[in-house]
Amino acid sequence: MASGSILTQNQYDVIAKVFRQADTEETGTVDSSRIIELALAVLGQTAKDPEKQLVKYYANLRGNNPTIAFADFLEMMGEILTETTRWGNLTTRLEGYVGFDTIQEQIRKKSLKKGFEFNLIVVGESGLGKSTLVNTLFKSKISRTSCTPGPHIIPKTTEVNSVSHVIEEQNVRLKLTITDTPGFGDQINNDKCWAPILEYVNDQFAQYLHEEVNIVRKRIIPDTRVHCCLYFIPPTGHCLRPIDIEFMKRLDEFVNIVPVIAKSDTLTIEERDAFKARIREDLTFHNIRIYPSGYNYDDEEESAINNKIEQFIPFAVIGSDKEMSVGGKRVLGRQTKWGFVEVENKKHCEFAQVRDMLIKTHMQDLKETTDKVHYENYRQRRLRESKAAPMGESNI
Amino acid sequence: MASGSILTQNQYDVIAKVFRQADTEETGTVDSSRIIELALAVLGQTAKDPEKQLVKYYANLRGNNPTIAFADFLEMMGEILTETTRWGNLTTRLEGYVGFDTIQEQIRKKSLKKGFEFNLIVVGESGLGKSTLVNTLFKSKISRTSCTPGPHIIPKTTEVNSVSHVIEEQNVRLKLTITDTPGFGDQINNDKCWAPILEYVNDQFAQYLHEEVNIVRKRIIPDTRVHCCLYFIPPTGHCLRPIDIEFMKRLDEFVNIVPVIAKSDTLTIEERDAFKARIREDLTFHNIRIYPSGYNYDDEEESAINNKIEQFIPFAVIGSDKEMSVGGKRVLGRQTKWGFVEVENKKHCEFAQVRDMLIKTHMQDLKETTDKVHYENYRQRRLRESKAAPMGESNI
Repeated sequence: MASGSILTQNQYDVIAKVFRQADTEETGTVDSSRIIELALAVLGQTAKDPEKQLVKYYANLRGNNPTIAFADFLEMMGEILTETTRWGNLTTRLEGYVGFDTIQEQIRKKSLKKGFEFNLIVVGESGLGKSTLVNTLFKSKISRTSCTPGPHIIPKTTEVNSVSHVIEEQNVRLKLTITDTPGFGDQINNDKCWAPILEYVNDQFAQYLHEEVNIVRKRIIPDTRVHCCLYFIPPTGHCLRPIDIEFMKRLDEFVNIVPVIAKSDTLTIEERDAFKARIREDLTFHNIRIYPSGYNYDDEEESAINNKIEQFIPFAVIGSDKEMSVGGKRVLGRQTKWGFVEVENKKHCEFAQVRDMLIKTHMQDLKETTDKVHYENYRQRRLRESKAAPMGESNI
Repeated sequence: MASGSILTQNQYDVIAKVFRQADTEETGTVDSSRIIELALAVLGQTAKDPEKQLVKYYANLRGNNPTIAFADFLEMMGEILTETTRWGNLTTRLEGYVGFDTIQEQIRKKSLKKGFEFNLIVVGESGLGKSTLVNTLFKSKISRTSCTPGPHIIPKTTEVNSVSHVIEEQNVRLKLTITDTPGFGDQINNDKCWAPILEYVNDQFAQYLHEEVNIVRKRIIPDTRVHCCLYFIPPTGHCLRPIDIEFMKRLDEFVNIVPVIAKSDTLTIEERDAFKARIREDLTFHNIRIYPSGYNYDDEEESAINNKIEQFIPFAVIGSDKEMSVGGKRVLGRQTKWGFVEVENKKHCEFAQVRDMLIKTHMQDLKETTDKVHYENYRQRRLRESKAAPMGESNI
C-alpha cells in the first residue's frame, strides 16, 4: 500500500479468513505453492488477467521460501491492492447513491474541450492508391492536397511529408496528421528506403521525450508520434517481396503496422485467399509483429476481438472516391464493364473491416499502444544509452 | 507545425486571404500591432481563452519588429495550430459520417476497466466531525474503521493515517484513499503541527516523480497524490485563528484546499453569514489560495461555475450518520429538541454544495489541478534543486 496506508478492519478480516482456512494445521504459515490461489481467493470473481499477472509477480518475489507467514501474505496483498481497483471481496459497500459515476461525464466534457489527435503514416510504392484510400477512410480530401510542388514527380529518395487536418463530428474535434512517403520503393536501388521513415518515427518520439523531460512542461504535450502505419502490399498474388519484409522487420519495433493488400480488385477470390494465406505465412516466418495481434491484451474480451481481426490480416482493400447509386443509396465504388465493386461492402473487400478497426474500435488502442509500448521502448533505449544515466533512480 | 508538416492548399488560402485583406497597401507586410487580430480572424468564432493565450504568446515572440511579413505570419499560425484542435475556419469539411466520434466511447470503456482513484485528506482538530462528514459524503463506513489502536487517544503530534477503499457505482470502480490527521491542533503547543501533513503530501509527489523518471516504468503509475484537502474550521463565529491561517498558507502551494465550517448547526443564520464573510476577508487578506477560485480557468463556462461556488466558501457543513423519515423519505440529519437539521437540504446547510463539487462536478478537475499545477510545481522545484540538472535539456 501507499506509505502510511493501512487496511480497514473489514479488509483485514477477509484476508485473515482466507489465510486461516488454508492454514489447516494452524502453524501460522501456508505452503508457498498456494500463495497465488490464496491471493486470487481474496480478490474473488472480479480478478481478471491483469490481476492474475500482478498476483504472480508479487508471489514470485516471495517464491524462495517454502512457506509464507500471514504478515508476509498481508504485505503482498497490500502491494497488489495498490496497483488495481478490482478489489473483489474487499470492495466497500455503499448505503446509497454517491454520484462518483459522474466522473466519466466529467472526463468526457474535458476531453471534448481539448480535442483528440491521431497520426497515420502511409507507406507503399506509387500507384497503389494510398491517397485515395486515406480519402475514402476519412471521407474528405485529406491526402494529395498539399501545396508542395507537383505530386506526380517521383522523388529520388523516400520523402516524408505530413499534412494536418482538423475534422469534426458530433462536437468531437480530431486533429488528423497524415504522413505520406513518396519515393518509397520507387527507385532502381531501394536499399535503405525505409531509413527516412524510421528516422521520422523516431524524431517524433524524440520531440515528445524532449517535452516530457523539460523542467517547465507544456500543460498538454502536442502528440505527433505516429500511431499507425498502413503498409500497402502490391496485389502481385505471389508472396511478400524482400522490400516488404525488410520494411516491416525494420519498423515493427517502433510503430503499429497494419498491412493491406492494395487494389485487391485485381485478384480473383481464389487468388486473394491464397495470397493472403501466403502473406500470413511470410509474416509468421519472419517473425514480424503486426497490430493488433502482435501485442498482448490482458483482457479476454479484447483478445477475442483481436483474434477475429487477425483472420483478416492483411486486409484486402479497394479505394475509391467515385460514388454510384446502388439500390437507391449512394455508395463508393469502382465501375467496371462486368460489375460495380462497392468499397464499403464487406462481401466485396475488407475496406470496412480496416476502417472499423482504425477508426471505430481501435483508434484509442493504437494511441495507447504507441504510448505504452513503442514510446516506452524508445524512451528506455535513449535513457540507457545516455551513459551517466542522468534520469536514473540515483538522481531522484 | 510538427517537423516536416505542411499546410494544405485550402489552409494556406484561408491564412493568405486574411493577411491580404489586412495588407491594404500591398507592401507584403502588416503592422505588428495587428498580428493578434489577424491570427484570431483565421481561427474565427471557435477561438476561446486557451487559443487567445496561445496567439498572444506566439505574437509576443515576434513583437520586436514594427511590421510582420507573410512568411512569419504563416510560421506563427503553424505554431498555434500545433497546440490546439480549435482550428475554426481551417477545419476540413467531411463528406459523410466517418465514425471517429466513437473515440469517446473507446476511452470510456478503457477507463472503466482501469477504474479511478481519488485521494482526500481531512485536517482539523479532534471533535469537529471529520470522520462523520467523510462517511456522509461517501455513504459508507469509510472513516474511523481502521484497525489501528484506539482512535480516541489523541496522539502527541500530528499523525497521518491513510485508509483505502474501493467503492463501486454503475460499474465505475473508485479507489478512494482517505487520509486522516489525528493530533493536528490538539496540543498545548501546536508549532509546526502542519509539518507532518506537508511531508506526507510531498512524499506522494516524490513517489510519483520517482516512478515517472524510472527507466522501466509501470504501465499505470499508482496515483497516491493528495487531490484535495478538506480543512475543518471550528464554528467559533469569530475569525480564522492563527493555526488556520498558518496551515493554509503553508499548504496552499501543494494541495487543493477546500475550507469548511464544521458543525455549523451551532451558528444562527446571522452568525453563520457574518462568520463566513469574516473568513473570506481573512483568506483574501492573507492571500490564501482556495480551490477552485484560486486557480485560473481558461474556459468561460468553468469560470462561471467556479464564481458561483466561490460564494459558498467556506462551506458551512453538518455531518450525520443518523437517518430520519422526513415527508416519507429517509434523510440524514440531526434531531434536536427544536427541529430536525437535514444534512442534504440546501436550505439547512451547505453540505450538498460541497458534496456536489467534490464528487459530481469537480472530482476530475481536482485530480487534473493536482497533476498539472501542484505536481508540476513540485517537479520543477526538485529538478531545479538537483544541481547538475540531470534531466535538463542538455542531456536529452
